[in-house]
Amino acid sequence: MSDERIPETWNGAAPQATPQTVHMSHGSGGRLMHTLITSLFQSHFANPFLDALDDGAVLPALPGRLAFTTDSYVVDPIFFPGGNIGDLAVNGTVNDLCMCGAVPLYLSAGFILEEGLALTDLEEIVASMAEAAKKAGVHIVTGDTKVVEKGKADRLFINTAGIGTIAVQHPMGSRHLQPGDAVLLSGPVGDHGIAVLSQRKNLGFSSSITSDTAALNELTAALYKTRGEAVHAMRDPTRGGLAAVLNEFAGASAVSIQLEETAIPVRPEVRTACELLGLDPLYIANEGKMVVIVAEPASMEALDILRQHPLGREAEYIGRVCSGNPGLVSMHTELGGWRIIDQPMGELLPRIC
Amino acid sequence: MSDERIPETWNGAAPQATPQTVHMSHGSGGRLMHTLITSLFQSHFANPFLDALDDGAVLPALPGRLAFTTDSYVVDPIFFPGGNIGDLAVNGTVNDLCMCGAVPLYLSAGFILEEGLALTDLEEIVASMAEAAKKAGVHIVTGDTKVVEKGKADRLFINTAGIGTIAVQHPMGSRHLQPGDAVLLSGPVGDHGIAVLSQRKNLGFSSSITSDTAALNELTAALYKTRGEAVHAMRDPTRGGLAAVLNEFAGASAVSIQLEETAIPVRPEVRTACELLGLDPLYIANEGKMVVIVAEPASMEALDILRQHPLGREAEYIGRVCSGNPGLVSMHTELGGWRIIDQPMGELLPRIC
Repeated sequence: MSDERIPETWNGAAPQATPQTVHMSHGSGGRLMHTLITSLFQSHFANPFLDALDDGAVLPALPGRLAFTTDSYVVDPIFFPGGNIGDLAVNGTVNDLCMCGAVPLYLSAGFILEEGLALTDLEEIVASMAEAAKKAGVHIVTGDTKVVEKGKADRLFINTAGIGTIAVQHPMGSRHLQPGDAVLLSGPVGDHGIAVLSQRKNLGFSSSITSDTAALNELTAALYKTRGEAVHAMRDPTRGGLAAVLNEFAGASAVSIQLEETAIPVRPEVRTACELLGLDPLYIANEGKMVVIVAEPASMEALDILRQHPLGREAEYIGRVCSGNPGLVSMHTELGGWRIIDQPMGELLPRIC
Repeated sequence: MSDERIPETWNGAAPQATPQTVHMSHGSGGRLMHTLITSLFQSHFANPFLDALDDGAVLPALPGRLAFTTDSYVVDPIFFPGGNIGDLAVNGTVNDLCMCGAVPLYLSAGFILEEGLALTDLEEIVASMAEAAKKAGVHIVTGDTKVVEKGKADRLFINTAGIGTIAVQHPMGSRHLQPGDAVLLSGPVGDHGIAVLSQRKNLGFSSSITSDTAALNELTAALYKTRGEAVHAMRDPTRGGLAAVLNEFAGASAVSIQLEETAIPVRPEVRTACELLGLDPLYIANEGKMVVIVAEPASMEALDILRQHPLGREAEYIGRVCSGNPGLVSMHTELGGWRIIDQPMGELLPRIC
């Protein structure tokens, strides 16, 4: 970041009054954008790598293989119980890096702002991003701002991309499930989706549920450290929920997965809201939970590691990877039968993240 | 990328007809999104690093310092003479990496799609991205797709972030201009902005100008290789044009810059369009040009290097860095006077990139 002031008075004009909402000029590459960058983004994201005056950040050499990921966030509404689009955008990308077996290090932030967005809302969101980044131990090092006319976006969209260094040396991911593996879940499902839905004007239900948005980097670091080689895959069940993740895993590894319904933690308020809305908690988005596929001999130790961290205190052993029926996810129900857990088909919950 | 098929028939349902436009379900995390990813993104972007079934890409170790950058693209219209939002999104981020002194290597791509976008348009754009990436020698290794309701975006926004390895060892950038340095420009200014403007329905002028969107990696690589240490700063003059870049440079380095109007290349058609619209070519966006600030003794050789490449054939020596008047950019005009080239103030040309 440059300390030199850009002279404000070369053209002799009086300084303009600061607008209270986002104007088209905030995206023009000119003075108003420069002010937005220095007074808002640089002041909140301040770190030695951020240099909004050049075209990108220069980062020190990183050892070993890298993880690289991106996500755009379009959640509606942008503020919801337990968080906002800003901390969601940081935690979501941090978690994607963690799920690749990486230690998250650097994020980019790309903002698409709708003309008319209140600058106080933008500042609150940027402050949340800065706080979430600090908590997760990452730096927001490069960014971009675009403004579109009123009616051409929905207040604010954020893209974050992230870089991390791979911390595990063995092959890991959706293709590496093995029959016999244990399926662990770090906590109750459905909180984020229900928290966002409770704010939708047309649904009209109230709920005490708050989003579970959180960075999982400490949880994954603890797992890598102690039982890294036993972890075959990890994934945070966001869009499409637990059902989508397990279907992808089962398909990619050509295995089947059997779940035990009574073992899957769901908060009573989430269960009630789901019954009210005709939804299934297994298909609802989470933003601070993870599925861990771990070799059976290490399963109890891995579960203990999860439970020792505040974000994994309610972790459970929810199922097992089996051979045969490649791609099939089924659940042994509370009533003693079996239910097929299919991949989500239509759009259950638009713009949940 | 996984070769295993996701079984389509576990629930016994008949396969759905493929929709011709983007549906909300394309962003749901479910089957339709999975199909979009495999049939469109994976098939066009195919490379050994892309694995849309995991949460991010795992990249090999990279030597030395890294460059990291991001840009969102909201250009309106999404198709324009000489390009579309897709190749623009690839070239723009490739160029940002080049301007940091890096060799561009890997890109991410985040799509925000408006419900109702024709899938044929999306495919054309994705194909352009793949072609632009190939031309620039980069891989698109990780991505994300979100869908928002009709009226909540404007057809399609794309974010690309990029990683490259720093190829120059000396300090370079907006803070490193030195009095006496030469200011080189790789070709005529204003083409991209005028090409996009010519497509705006409300402006009603026609023009034969096409966008200059192009990747500058070969041009910058040739410069690094031969006169790398003499290059003090590089920048592609996009939003805000040449005027914005030079003002940022002058401010950040606390120097002044003097331009020679007759030396600045502008195509006659661009000049005519600018006169018609009351615009100044120095403030119009470019997407395949670069400003090079180079130590005076190396200036002629650097100019030759630029001119040897098709993208720099019309390069010119357009001005000089001076001491005194920190932040001031002025231009010796064709008529013999001096004109101050201020930072752009308002929003001249919204959504030009």
